Amino acid sequence: MINIAILGFGVVGSGVAEILETNAGRIAKSAGEGVRLKYIVDIRDFPGSRFSGLFTRDFSAVERDPDVSVVVETVGGVGAALDFTRRCLAAGKNVVTSNKELVASHGYELIKQAKERNVNYFFEASVGGGIPILRPITQCLAANEISEIFGILNGTTNFVLTSMIKQGQSLGFALRQARENGYAEADPSDDIDGHDACRKICILAALCFGRHVYPQYVATEGIGRVELEDAEYAGRIGCTIKLLGRAFLAPGGKVAAYVAPHLISQDRLLAGVDGVMNGIVVRGNAIGEVLFYGAGAGKLPTASAIAADIIDCAKHAGARKRIEWEDGSAGDIYETGQLESRWYIRTPASRDKLAGAFGRGELTIISAPNSSRTAFATPAMSARSLSAHMEGIPMLSNFRIME
Amino acid sequence: MINIAILGFGVVGSGVAEILETNAGRIAKSAGEGVRLKYIVDIRDFPGSRFSGLFTRDFSAVERDPDVSVVVETVGGVGAALDFTRRCLAAGKNVVTSNKELVASHGYELIKQAKERNVNYFFEASVGGGIPILRPITQCLAANEISEIFGILNGTTNFVLTSMIKQGQSLGFALRQARENGYAEADPSDDIDGHDACRKICILAALCFGRHVYPQYVATEGIGRVELEDAEYAGRIGCTIKLLGRAFLAPGGKVAAYVAPHLISQDRLLAGVDGVMNGIVVRGNAIGEVLFYGAGAGKLPTASAIAADIIDCAKHAGARKRIEWEDGSAGDIYETGQLESRWYIRTPASRDKLAGAFGRGELTIISAPNSSRTAFATPAMSARSLSAHMEGIPMLSNFRIME
Repeated sequence: MINIAILGFGVVGSGVAEILETNAGRIAKSAGEGVRLKYIVDIRDFPGSRFSGLFTRDFSAVERDPDVSVVVETVGGVGAALDFTRRCLAAGKNVVTSNKELVASHGYELIKQAKERNVNYFFEASVGGGIPILRPITQCLAANEISEIFGILNGTTNFVLTSMIKQGQSLGFALRQARENGYAEADPSDDIDGHDACRKICILAALCFGRHVYPQYVATEGIGRVELEDAEYAGRIGCTIKLLGRAFLAPGGKVAAYVAPHLISQDRLLAGVDGVMNGIVVRGNAIGEVLFYGAGAGKLPTASAIAADIIDCAKHAGARKRIEWEDGSAGDIYETGQLESRWYIRTPASRDKLAGAFGRGELTIISAPNSSRTAFATPAMSARSLSAHMEGIPMLSNFRIME
Repeated sequence: MINIAILGFGVVGSGVAEILETNAGRIAKSAGEGVRLKYIVDIRDFPGSRFSGLFTRDFSAVERDPDVSVVVETVGGVGAALDFTRRCLAAGKNVVTSNKELVASHGYELIKQAKERNVNYFFEASVGGGIPILRPITQCLAANEISEIFGILNGTTNFVLTSMIKQGQSLGFALRQARENGYAEADPSDDIDGHDACRKICILAALCFGRHVYPQYVATEGIGRVELEDAEYAGRIGCTIKLLGRAFLAPGGKVAAYVAPHLISQDRLLAGVDGVMNGIVVRGNAIGEVLFYGAGAGKLPTASAIAADIIDCAKHAGARKRIEWEDGSAGDIYETGQLESRWYIRTPASRDKLAGAFGRGELTIISAPNSSRTAFATPAMSARSLSAHMEGIPMLSNFRIME
């Protein structure tokens, strides 16, 4: 029998308790033994909860209990969660989490600490909710040299963009709808501004390329500048607009990582990943491209990924799995301003002015009825080169195009 | 150092040799030690091969060599492959294969034999080529009660259907193109008639539901009856045509499994899986739907899945992984004739005759210009009920609709 504790009884934490109960038989069969929830640590009261006998406010009860071998950290953030995680690992307990902020900022340190104590620090639920992605990268694609990973990593912004594009809603209206449906927090700025996607691409980059990529080195742009008009222009050149996190191996062995809205070709399967769903593409030298798709958030999908990690801890008690990466620094990061791509631009400037800036015949003009603006697609060039061409010309939108 | 042998130096076997060489560093890092190819067993000559020093025609050299701990079976079929696999397992060697025919027909027996000898029999490459699917089902979704799995499991037929639908080609022409591109065998009947997809859905069903599903119990229909006209009608009701393998838990704990062409809604991501690509959807009670997409065949993708299995054998030497299922029989199988769905029908019969058979207003008539035929969609009903309604009326096509 494996005894576990859950730290933080919010949406995900309570989902874990629910799944351990609902799918107890299946979980015991997979783990090779039963999984028993012994403590739930939370400072709040949950009167009437059917888990009422398990609640405690005293984290140290978990820390001191030698029977508890796996601790689920669903506290979130980097305050108490970091302290609790360090203390659990120091006490020789496996830790399983969905806390992407903590993994993105302290993953290197915590994995190292886990290794020293011969326990596991697992975080499948931190990226893509319930979509299996970390394990497939480290195990199933283990014979591939991975060159690139990119995808739709945030369900809230994908819901908003899908509503804008498919139903012609404004960003503000779509966001209100997302909130009403429980797809967005009261303060959605972490999603809208791209920070959530940034943390996830940091974790994915570290797993694929073996070096910690810290969020502060990742150029991050959210969907705040995307307007309805952009969706219309994008459709006219066979594209849709998606917020992508992307990381790849750049020249010189550096890692490039960034988050930004992209126009992507409707011919790509990723363009069909709509609503709150997530989709992640991995490119390897043997496999080519593989895509993983599913619910990127939500109580039960995320809890199901945590439960899979608990099972893995049970099966590998005393036998660590080889998930680790080196520390990273600013010097390892490729500056994405150098990265070339075609660009989509919307501007109030005249076509003549643009022809002057880029050379006649160089641009693909995108026409839309009922618009006095000009939108166009450039040939492939770096962000720097684009800025140089557009000097003195205002840009209302400028997004990379992924063909 | 792990010593391995490859049995059968065809497309996949030679791909394994290539990947072990090209990605040696990455593989050694993942496996925790180097992987050395010691023998290649084949009855053919490969003059000038850079692996020439490794060839032997004598399987027993592998069988008797205690240094060989992992054997890659890429012989194919159920003749020599079955004999070699049994003998390798009996000799205490792990066996890794892409041989779906062998796993679908003898998986239960071989996994049992492996268990008795405390070694592994792995077959990630047998379904979906290089797409990670077997491990995600058994590990990442281990906390889910899986209710259904379905997908595009055969790249050849998907290429043919895509060419018919997107380029208006006839089945025969598209098939010739597939052959010219190396996507179809000289005798493509195993693909076209659905037998290849049948073997794969058998393996997936066994993994998801824990019981061996033998191919002879799986109603299997290929793409031979799909005509260009059907693709046109399908498009008119927002669908495309895909050959799906499908398995699900049916009432009474039985397993239903079948292979047949379906009309599927273009709103589904699976509808966008085109060309030689495969896509597999798994439905679990916590995760909802997840989809795995990638190259379902081909030398390097398939070899990359085999290499991942080799790595897994290396990491779990002497510690078997819990992949097993019970034996199955005809009595465990739900007869798919009872399964209800909407149906797409194409017939030379008149609308009046159909209204008589089904009742006026019950059918959705699909009109297409330039056709004297009638095509329509029925309400949800079983195959038996459909046959009863259509008694005496010829059907040119009848495919289930997946909304």
